[in-house]
Amino acid sequence: MVMRGSLLFNNNRRTAQRFRQLAISAVGSSKIKLLLCFCIAFTVLLLLSRGSTLTEWTDSGPLDRSSSPGKGYAILMNTWKRYDLLKQSIAHYAKCPGLDSIHLVWSEPDPPSDSLQIFLQHIIRKNSRNGRQVELKFDINTEDSLNNRFKEIKDLKADAVFSIDDDIIFPCHSVKFAFDVWRSAPDQMVGFVPRKVCVESKEGKDYYSYCGWWSVWWTGTYSMVLSKASFFHKKYLRLYTNEMPTSIKEFVTENRNCEDIAMSFLVANVTDAPPIWVKGKIYEIGSTGISTLGGHSEKRTQCLNRFAAEFGRMPLVPTSMKAVDSRRMWFW
Amino acid sequence: MVMRGSLLFNNNRRTAQRFRQLAISAVGSSKIKLLLCFCIAFTVLLLLSRGSTLTEWTDSGPLDRSSSPGKGYAILMNTWKRYDLLKQSIAHYAKCPGLDSIHLVWSEPDPPSDSLQIFLQHIIRKNSRNGRQVELKFDINTEDSLNNRFKEIKDLKADAVFSIDDDIIFPCHSVKFAFDVWRSAPDQMVGFVPRKVCVESKEGKDYYSYCGWWSVWWTGTYSMVLSKASFFHKKYLRLYTNEMPTSIKEFVTENRNCEDIAMSFLVANVTDAPPIWVKGKIYEIGSTGISTLGGHSEKRTQCLNRFAAEFGRMPLVPTSMKAVDSRRMWFW
Repeated sequence: MVMRGSLLFNNNRRTAQRFRQLAISAVGSSKIKLLLCFCIAFTVLLLLSRGSTLTEWTDSGPLDRSSSPGKGYAILMNTWKRYDLLKQSIAHYAKCPGLDSIHLVWSEPDPPSDSLQIFLQHIIRKNSRNGRQVELKFDINTEDSLNNRFKEIKDLKADAVFSIDDDIIFPCHSVKFAFDVWRSAPDQMVGFVPRKVCVESKEGKDYYSYCGWWSVWWTGTYSMVLSKASFFHKKYLRLYTNEMPTSIKEFVTENRNCEDIAMSFLVANVTDAPPIWVKGKIYEIGSTGISTLGGHSEKRTQCLNRFAAEFGRMPLVPTSMKAVDSRRMWFW
Repeated sequence: MVMRGSLLFNNNRRTAQRFRQLAISAVGSSKIKLLLCFCIAFTVLLLLSRGSTLTEWTDSGPLDRSSSPGKGYAILMNTWKRYDLLKQSIAHYAKCPGLDSIHLVWSEPDPPSDSLQIFLQHIIRKNSRNGRQVELKFDINTEDSLNNRFKEIKDLKADAVFSIDDDIIFPCHSVKFAFDVWRSAPDQMVGFVPRKVCVESKEGKDYYSYCGWWSVWWTGTYSMVLSKASFFHKKYLRLYTNEMPTSIKEFVTENRNCEDIAMSFLVANVTDAPPIWVKGKIYEIGSTGISTLGGHSEKRTQCLNRFAAEFGRMPLVPTSMKAVDSRRMWFW
């Protein structure tokens, strides 16, 4: 048995050696080398060209169908004494395809300076591509209220409004993708920053609480997308201005908070459906905002309960849907 | 130098040994063991409970708001002489929450047998949970045409129609998720099986071609979701029945194909927006279908060009949006 075992072992070793020699000589041969190079090059090419077309077939029409008038979107940007951030934001978004016009919500005591206006006009002309003409308008308000953010804009050509803070930058392809998603669901808010409403029942009554990012991550559900980075239909500006209960608008002005929650309530009350959260990379260029101040979460919890009482119900609908760009996903 | 080097080495070795001993004795101690056990148990608990609530806070209302009448969906299932598959499908979908009614499109020469009807009624009663009453209706047709699939249903309570083949099973949570997505975009088709239209320009004229699954995977874009597994609004049944050009309906009947492409054209023509593809796991319980027959792709290419000529344009809009359930995603 020992003999047979060692013979087998010797045989195995010899076979293994033969295979190794064969493999080495084969790989060493120039033909195999060429084949290997070709395989590697082909794989690299394949990886690089995924998403573009290798053949003469292309998509049925370009993905960008937003070139016709009224088919683009308007940016609605709230700004407050941070001119450097404003310039940086406008310079960036002016480059984005599909953009029709930019509306700056101006609530400072002094009107925008001539130099600021000239600079912004110049940077927009310089950065908007393909001969597009992007309009810039200042919506100047005498009263300083967060409700100004959602004032009706009478001469808005685009149906889609991209509401964005002046200190957040999204890459143009993310904005374009969110716009495409919005076109499939034009009655909903479509945005990048989801938030959650938590509810606790005490003695048959519901108490709501504002749950932040971690809660969304933990449960995978949300019921709002913040209006600091979201698309919605322009009709909601009219509804906010004319139909929102005065008590809610007064609360927003007095507390300098929760105008976005009020807008989310309004949209959900109309549609009875949840908003849509779109995956996108956020670049925050500013450092401070009201959400970093102390007591922010408590104030927003207060808003939720107060607004729910005003609406007579909690209109927000929870969901777990996330819209992702399948061109940017490898694993399905 | 050599001396110093070896001293250093000895010192290092001694320090390492001391650390090793310390570590071993520490791990060996019962307190540390307990701590380790606690850490492992906590991690396992954390992983298991993700998605459920650890605290007393829960979602604002259940994610399932489809319990009120008219808020659910109806299943519209085309079936043809495959009673085993039919029974299996119905038994499965009867379990799914949100289901209001099942409409079986019956185009066989003989009406459904009593035994089949009794069996299906029984299995639905048995499987539908929480005291729900799921209605079963046979839509019996005298003519055998694929247009029967989209005949108007006059007494449909639900707005949402889930059109599904009898040989495809989706888990209830996938169906529920797609239904939730549809509620955010009720004018669109929302489905699990995306397909792509490719276009080639020859002498200023566009020629369309039907591109399958691989093309969708490769480019990440699509312009249809197949009606063999998709949600749409019941109004499209009325539009298909009453507004679809007769020539297209005749073509569908004669060729026994492309009724789903015709429906996609109709919806896109109304909305001018793309459908929505929802991620979901498909279980195909049958083995054959027209898509496995030879010449399937050529016939569908023919349909695309013919229907585009009838509509006077290509209404289908390409997109790259994919709706995923964020409760089932770990990496964002």
